[in-house]
Amino acid sequence: MTQSPTLDALFAQRAQTVADSPGWAPEPEGSISLAYGFADPAHFPVNELVEATAEVLAEDVDGALNYGPTCAGLIKLVVNRLQHRGVNQADPSNVLISYGSSQILALLPQILVDPGDTVIVEGPCFIGAVRSFQAAGARIETVPVRDDGMDLDALATMLADLQSRGIQPKFIYVTPTYQNPTGTLMPPANRKRIVALAEQYGVLIVEDDAYGDLRFEGEPVTPIIAYDTKGWVINVGTFSKILAPGVRMAWACGPEAVIKRLAKFKFEGGSGPFITRLVERFAADGRLEAHIDELNGTYKRKRDLMVDTIRSEFPADVRFNVPMGGFFIYCYLPADMPAAELVQKGREHGVTFLPGMGCYANGQGTHEIRLAFSYQSDEKIVEGIRRLGAAMKALRTTV
Amino acid sequence: MTQSPTLDALFAQRAQTVADSPGWAPEPEGSISLAYGFADPAHFPVNELVEATAEVLAEDVDGALNYGPTCAGLIKLVVNRLQHRGVNQADPSNVLISYGSSQILALLPQILVDPGDTVIVEGPCFIGAVRSFQAAGARIETVPVRDDGMDLDALATMLADLQSRGIQPKFIYVTPTYQNPTGTLMPPANRKRIVALAEQYGVLIVEDDAYGDLRFEGEPVTPIIAYDTKGWVINVGTFSKILAPGVRMAWACGPEAVIKRLAKFKFEGGSGPFITRLVERFAADGRLEAHIDELNGTYKRKRDLMVDTIRSEFPADVRFNVPMGGFFIYCYLPADMPAAELVQKGREHGVTFLPGMGCYANGQGTHEIRLAFSYQSDEKIVEGIRRLGAAMKALRTTV
Repeated sequence: MTQSPTLDALFAQRAQTVADSPGWAPEPEGSISLAYGFADPAHFPVNELVEATAEVLAEDVDGALNYGPTCAGLIKLVVNRLQHRGVNQADPSNVLISYGSSQILALLPQILVDPGDTVIVEGPCFIGAVRSFQAAGARIETVPVRDDGMDLDALATMLADLQSRGIQPKFIYVTPTYQNPTGTLMPPANRKRIVALAEQYGVLIVEDDAYGDLRFEGEPVTPIIAYDTKGWVINVGTFSKILAPGVRMAWACGPEAVIKRLAKFKFEGGSGPFITRLVERFAADGRLEAHIDELNGTYKRKRDLMVDTIRSEFPADVRFNVPMGGFFIYCYLPADMPAAELVQKGREHGVTFLPGMGCYANGQGTHEIRLAFSYQSDEKIVEGIRRLGAAMKALRTTV
Repeated sequence: MTQSPTLDALFAQRAQTVADSPGWAPEPEGSISLAYGFADPAHFPVNELVEATAEVLAEDVDGALNYGPTCAGLIKLVVNRLQHRGVNQADPSNVLISYGSSQILALLPQILVDPGDTVIVEGPCFIGAVRSFQAAGARIETVPVRDDGMDLDALATMLADLQSRGIQPKFIYVTPTYQNPTGTLMPPANRKRIVALAEQYGVLIVEDDAYGDLRFEGEPVTPIIAYDTKGWVINVGTFSKILAPGVRMAWACGPEAVIKRLAKFKFEGGSGPFITRLVERFAADGRLEAHIDELNGTYKRKRDLMVDTIRSEFPADVRFNVPMGGFFIYCYLPADMPAAELVQKGREHGVTFLPGMGCYANGQGTHEIRLAFSYQSDEKIVEGIRRLGAAMKALRTTV
């Protein structure tokens, strides 16, 4: 007797089981979301993008709309911007343009992680990246974040410990500049030290530089990759925060052996002649830098507004970081204010945010929350923080 | 003594070796290319795309430019178009929008092929797809193409033979409608038969429907997937030929278990709120269908022009297909006219084209060539065919 053939028998090993991708949760009606690191829609360069579309199509419609490679001018623009920030090794041969940095963060474990391999991340960090690493079968080790970013003493101890157990970690995922979610900034001496650790232990550093250009004050920040002379650092940047997330354009710069493999596993090839030309046209001739200056003025004002409102509305024993850039304020809650309960109480008060547990691979963060000041209007930032302050007080009364 | 750590030691198994992606070869100066299936740049809807950009951004700038999913309206539009062609099972739950059909054709072996697995293709066929399958470690079996498309007697024999040897092929890659490169059209009875074979042997069919809408004459064509009631067919379509390749938008429709896994392995998630809304806006309200009608008028005229010129310029013993749709005319050369030598002679005469060997996984096609009438202007089609006819005659004189 022949068995009826089944579709399930055809899937490759790696696709036998598959977790659903997380969707976009709708907000409750009338609620104010401080949850996501969305960009400020009031500052999207609408007219400029329409003009850029018209220009790109008028100039070379065949180049923009037929088959073709990623716009070489966009690669050059990324190279120039990186070199301007001290990344002397940046070159068209070691830069890859991608559909959002989420694509890079998902491709990296594809080329670096066999099931069971170890990847080191910060706790807390951008959990979307961790999910990509886990999807490739990575075992996650977490290093704490201090006021000056990743705790490098803890990292050094962990690397030595892993080595003593014969475990070769594949890469360290770190966001040194206006970290998501803590907003912390790693000082130059630590940037040098983490590169030295990477060299010593033969482990790559994946530097998530998503917020690197969103500087409100202080000296310009040199990315970790600029301190790397031996090819152990991959810098991942994005146009999402400095132009618009919806265009899905980002880049990776790093050792050519890594970039070539990323390109190979980026199955669809280039990132589209039309959209890459559109972003290049918008960004060229200093327009992107002027736009970033405008954004930083706006985001600084919003940060100040959120900080001021927190000071007047939150209980005094809620601690928080004042970041020098980026999108987020991170709060440390007192022992009687668990984040999970505050999420519930916040919903009742019409405000949502990200509980700290959503930023850790290891279940920590039970008394931490992330607040985004990037997306909401001034009025809603003030009202959202008022509601959250009221929720905190209500939670205490209940307890 | 500790060995110096090396980067190579960090790559995952699947990334240890990596072939370079083929680049875009520049054409010789002054040469006329009949090589690639590029779209006609004279018919790109430039004004419509600029208007659509303005509309999409004016209507909902936050939706278009912030983080967000693939435009639901575009998915619905694809579903409606498929249903209109008889694909009753098309539903938003089993359609995935991708960055070009090349992304789907590269993701499919990722979820279906373990190294050494067998995949069945047509000879000749679109070799870009074959390269994707091979990159995933597929062993390729080739079934010949007849005047009515894939030779199903040969396929049935092959399936029986593989089964007798205990080999389970993973999928059959077939382009039944205006096939690339032969332009052949598989009749309805054969479409039913290939579905029955897939069911019988428990093997998926990947139906490349890139040219399905480019019909110049004859009855509307029902895709293979419309004959599939048990979930063995994946239909892959694209906006590249009916709108513009440069927007990089395509789709797959098929069994939900396959589509869900494709979505999971499409690491970057959705296909971008901006570009998917832009394509939806251009295509909505019948505009895409009107545009396709216009394109088909143009491509039919170009096909006729190329056919007429071939008849007057090529030696009489060069046979060729007159396709009822699509982008290509496929020629069968006499024994004294090897394609490799004609490529060289063609270059000397200022014309390029694809030799048949570039369309086979198994080295056949030594006396076949593919000519694209889609891209060049009327004048260049005539001049290109004249030059190629002269090259053929020169080759004979030389021999």
